[in-house]
Amino acid sequence: MSDTLRLFDLAGEDDELRFSPNCWRTRLALAHKGLAVDTVAWRFTEKDAIAPSGQGKVPVLVAGQRWLHESWDIAEYLEDHYPQRPSLFGCAHGRAVARFVNQWASDVLHPAVARCIIADIPPALHAKDREYFRTTREAAFGRSLEAIGAERDAALAALRQTLAPLRGVLARQDFVAGAQPAYADHAVFGAFQWARVLGTPRLAAPDDPVAAWVERMLEAYGGLARAAKCLPAHRM
Amino acid sequence: MSDTLRLFDLAGEDDELRFSPNCWRTRLALAHKGLAVDTVAWRFTEKDAIAPSGQGKVPVLVAGQRWLHESWDIAEYLEDHYPQRPSLFGCAHGRAVARFVNQWASDVLHPAVARCIIADIPPALHAKDREYFRTTREAAFGRSLEAIGAERDAALAALRQTLAPLRGVLARQDFVAGAQPAYADHAVFGAFQWARVLGTPRLAAPDDPVAAWVERMLEAYGGLARAAKCLPAHRM
Repeated sequence: MSDTLRLFDLAGEDDELRFSPNCWRTRLALAHKGLAVDTVAWRFTEKDAIAPSGQGKVPVLVAGQRWLHESWDIAEYLEDHYPQRPSLFGCAHGRAVARFVNQWASDVLHPAVARCIIADIPPALHAKDREYFRTTREAAFGRSLEAIGAERDAALAALRQTLAPLRGVLARQDFVAGAQPAYADHAVFGAFQWARVLGTPRLAAPDDPVAAWVERMLEAYGGLARAAKCLPAHRM
Repeated sequence: MSDTLRLFDLAGEDDELRFSPNCWRTRLALAHKGLAVDTVAWRFTEKDAIAPSGQGKVPVLVAGQRWLHESWDIAEYLEDHYPQRPSLFGCAHGRAVARFVNQWASDVLHPAVARCIIADIPPALHAKDREYFRTTREAAFGRSLEAIGAERDAALAALRQTLAPLRGVLARQDFVAGAQPAYADHAVFGAFQWARVLGTPRLAAPDDPVAAWVERMLEAYGGLARAAKCLPAHRM
């Protein structure tokens, strides 16, 4: 039982530049399940294209007649709809606890990474998205993108402090989910791929166990994340 | 196969005042497994009493001939040694991911709670522990306990921000581990019980899903945490 799967995936000016951390969660979850997917390059302002999902953000996964959104809800759908394929959560308890990791990544890690890379985003966007991005993000942060970008070094130092619990775990096991990656890893790794695609491949210091895990995640699923088109690496 | 279990548990001037967040993790894990334990009131400066553990901090669990320490390692021991009793982790994946929650609680939550309550601790301690506590904690924070205590209101506001990922999870499920509490809950709840025993029962605002979860955790395991002796509630 395999529906045709179609993923609306945020893209930049370049169709191939796919940088959304939340879409990367879904890309990795699909790969984990061994499911093929057609991705559609989507831009922030193309709300009409995903209107059947009932909201205006990606990832949006179209599975047969169903329009799914929210990366966490998509992961739960994949787990429940494809139970015979490799599990994203291991067991009900693992699913519940993975939700905490996912929430930490969304609430704490994403804003901390955003402060490091947000100035890189507008030039990468499709021209029609730039004003939308600036207006919504400056409202969310309460400051100009340039003001945030000017504190990039301090933001990187703060991010590395934020990584403490991830670092503590990855000093003791290869993946957040244990010996092999699973959704708890996808949920966190999306933020690192976001930065990497936009030209900041090294958020974690080279001797940080987090950096070694990023390398393992880049290799996972046949090197899916490693193969992604990236802007040239700069700074940091 | 039940060894006699003995837990060295941090106590205050009053033998019955048991406030260590890390010892509460172990108390709850033992209760989850349905294991009886003899607790021994222990003070910070009684290093000799736990020397067979090879280090100087509690919890220390003595299981037959084995001296175990570190709350996480004790939980893994209980899970592996009593596999037929209710699971602390659900599955291997659940155990790996619970480690992240445990690490977040230790690295992020405990320091944030400490900033709210540290001024309450010295008066509660046994007289022989007070100088040890002040010296070690002032070195760790780089400031006097009084200076930290003077910023209690700001510390509480910061703590409530720190609770964001926990709040997001508990808005959607009753326990961190899902429908029932397990070690991911014990790992986090220890910090709330620490504050409660020392007279700060309400770290989370009354309308916060975290506050409702604290109440559920107080009722769990026959009301074990609810029954603990506490200092009179004050402030906050």
